Amino acid sequence: MPLSDALQINAERLWHRLMALAQICANGKGGVDRQALTDGEHQAWHLVIDWARDAGLEVTTDPVANLFLTLPGKERHLPPILIGSHLDTQPTGGRFDGAFGVMAALEVATTISESNLVSSRDIVVVAWMNEEGSRFAPGMMGSEAFAKLRPLDVIRAVTDRDGISAGAEIDRIHAAFPDIANRPLGFEVGTYIEPHIEQDSVLEREEKVIGVVTGIQGKKTFEIEIAGTKGHAGTLPMSLRRDAVMAFARIAETLEREIGGHDDAIKFTIGQANVYPNAPSVIPDRVVFRVDLRHPDNEILDRCGHMLRQLCEKYAKPCTISIEALVSAPSNGFDAALQQAIAFAARKRNYPDLSLISFAGHDARHLAELCPSAMIFIPCKDGISHDEKEWSEPDHVAAGAQVLLDVVLEV
Amino acid sequence: MPLSDALQINAERLWHRLMALAQICANGKGGVDRQALTDGEHQAWHLVIDWARDAGLEVTTDPVANLFLTLPGKERHLPPILIGSHLDTQPTGGRFDGAFGVMAALEVATTISESNLVSSRDIVVVAWMNEEGSRFAPGMMGSEAFAKLRPLDVIRAVTDRDGISAGAEIDRIHAAFPDIANRPLGFEVGTYIEPHIEQDSVLEREEKVIGVVTGIQGKKTFEIEIAGTKGHAGTLPMSLRRDAVMAFARIAETLEREIGGHDDAIKFTIGQANVYPNAPSVIPDRVVFRVDLRHPDNEILDRCGHMLRQLCEKYAKPCTISIEALVSAPSNGFDAALQQAIAFAARKRNYPDLSLISFAGHDARHLAELCPSAMIFIPCKDGISHDEKEWSEPDHVAAGAQVLLDVVLEV
Repeated sequence: MPLSDALQINAERLWHRLMALAQICANGKGGVDRQALTDGEHQAWHLVIDWARDAGLEVTTDPVANLFLTLPGKERHLPPILIGSHLDTQPTGGRFDGAFGVMAALEVATTISESNLVSSRDIVVVAWMNEEGSRFAPGMMGSEAFAKLRPLDVIRAVTDRDGISAGAEIDRIHAAFPDIANRPLGFEVGTYIEPHIEQDSVLEREEKVIGVVTGIQGKKTFEIEIAGTKGHAGTLPMSLRRDAVMAFARIAETLEREIGGHDDAIKFTIGQANVYPNAPSVIPDRVVFRVDLRHPDNEILDRCGHMLRQLCEKYAKPCTISIEALVSAPSNGFDAALQQAIAFAARKRNYPDLSLISFAGHDARHLAELCPSAMIFIPCKDGISHDEKEWSEPDHVAAGAQVLLDVVLEV
Repeated sequence: MPLSDALQINAERLWHRLMALAQICANGKGGVDRQALTDGEHQAWHLVIDWARDAGLEVTTDPVANLFLTLPGKERHLPPILIGSHLDTQPTGGRFDGAFGVMAALEVATTISESNLVSSRDIVVVAWMNEEGSRFAPGMMGSEAFAKLRPLDVIRAVTDRDGISAGAEIDRIHAAFPDIANRPLGFEVGTYIEPHIEQDSVLEREEKVIGVVTGIQGKKTFEIEIAGTKGHAGTLPMSLRRDAVMAFARIAETLEREIGGHDDAIKFTIGQANVYPNAPSVIPDRVVFRVDLRHPDNEILDRCGHMLRQLCEKYAKPCTISIEALVSAPSNGFDAALQQAIAFAARKRNYPDLSLISFAGHDARHLAELCPSAMIFIPCKDGISHDEKEWSEPDHVAAGAQVLLDVVLEV
């Protein structure tokens, strides 16, 4: 057995660190509200950077506030192996989404650092900035900027509900960590692997431990604004109203029926809607809402996106409507050789594996545009995520990190 | 001509004061955002109290933070004549709703104070606390507490969106005005008259200047909460969802059609709706919204309230729903003799008058439970109120105050 096959991650340390990270912005009920670039993410950086420095990793950031923890290899000019995920959560997030990927990657780098092995290439652990997109929408800002898929200036200009810009918050986190070098945006990557909880219940139902992700289903997001006319709730006759909430109700009800009911594979969600002025006796003149639309089949996704625009125009009347496409990401396929390597590693360790598509979006989508990329899934109890009930078994957390280690050494 | 008939309000002073008041919390576009018990209302109190003291009025408050400005009469044991309205506005309020009534009443008290007349009874100008109900809902807290229609403890416990209680804010405004005596809650009133802009376009269309208000249409308000289950927008199949926003859309669309379309006189409004957790890729598990339902016919109002409950229960599925009735106020009729006195005063001054119902709710509704009460309406441009475009002509403002003066002297 080659030395590399004998290398074992420290499952206890990994679990302990994952739980310690979950204490930062814990909601007291097992969940975590650690949105991008908040004080809570600053705290998470402090903790993770301390662990990285203990393991001898080099710490750097970049102009979009991605965090990189590098284990130097023998041949530093070679494109590195990049592994990781994100540290931010949804406002009602759990302990594993994102955090598991970063902690598993850190565990891999730490294990190799503590061993007698020296990798030929650098191994870089990454925590991407704002994957979730709940504070600054849309998300995956760090990986999109890294892959040059969205201009940095556009990202910096996005504001949160309090009017604070992502740019100001990027500058704030950089200022809070003055001893961390700021490297240029984007670099050549040899391989990218992202471990993540499945966020669905396929692995659990099939009693598998490792998910070999074949690709990510396509996603479109829209920001839609309905404009009507304000008025007094007690005086303005119904027939003269241009009520933005009523237009929203008609549109949402129609989209749910026509698009949400298109087929079994489609996912249609209005997760966010804000009413203005939002006073009990004022007829609202404005509703702004977000649509999240996903489908594994790109042709159906495009058709439904088109249908959405037509239905919105039709049912907004007598209000007016404007529709902005925020994200339009087709389904993608991950690197075949990497998928094979993940399945092979799982089988050697006797972890039952299954190939599956990811219904959730991940930063790996954008890295796949740059280099051979892959994802390793572990089971997620009842398929529940973005919720305080989000849970993965310690054995599965360890298995995911071990497979990542084996694949990194293989690559 | 008796002396009292020659008494003229100072139209220029009244208009000037009304515009000065509108500078407090002005939104820069002609509108005002001066919600109940905010710093802005403190500023408004300072200004109004200064004017009242200049006119020799006694300034008092009460445990619910109503503001009283009293011109002493000859026989102070007699129940006073109470006149006024409110100083708070909607978040998107205008310059006249509420403010006109208080300023007209102050002008009447000031004019009498400056004359050689001494009224037999006290004349008390009132600014009721939180008529609008946009910060602390439902509104008309001050007049409801005064008329003992809602317990003070219940009012004090209401919180705004930031979790601040009305009680804490009542204590804060009392502390900010330590030199104002705090009289017991409620007192016997001889007559109540409230001047107000019409908030509808009937007077304007009919080219009338003075509206003799016959009564206020009935109103019911409900707070409705839909509870579903959170989930990931990209993974949870449509058929397994309990999406609170989709239940809201079905309910709102159905209520609009079935209740909003009941007849020409009904008014049905969802002015406020909040989605939780309100993140773009999380299926919402909670929507809380308010329904404002009005009709001049109490039987129809009751029937529609009943229908609303049934439709909500039916269309909420698979979510659950809870419905709380916040306000249930039947249509009322104002004092016939006072209506006659107002019409008589208008005709003597050659202001064309019209008897009409008020479609908006007012504090006068609650005072009518205590004593002979009435309202004087003046025209409101295009019927627009709760909006920065709210406008009344200076001549109409003066006419409303003059008629109030004439009626007060008559009473």
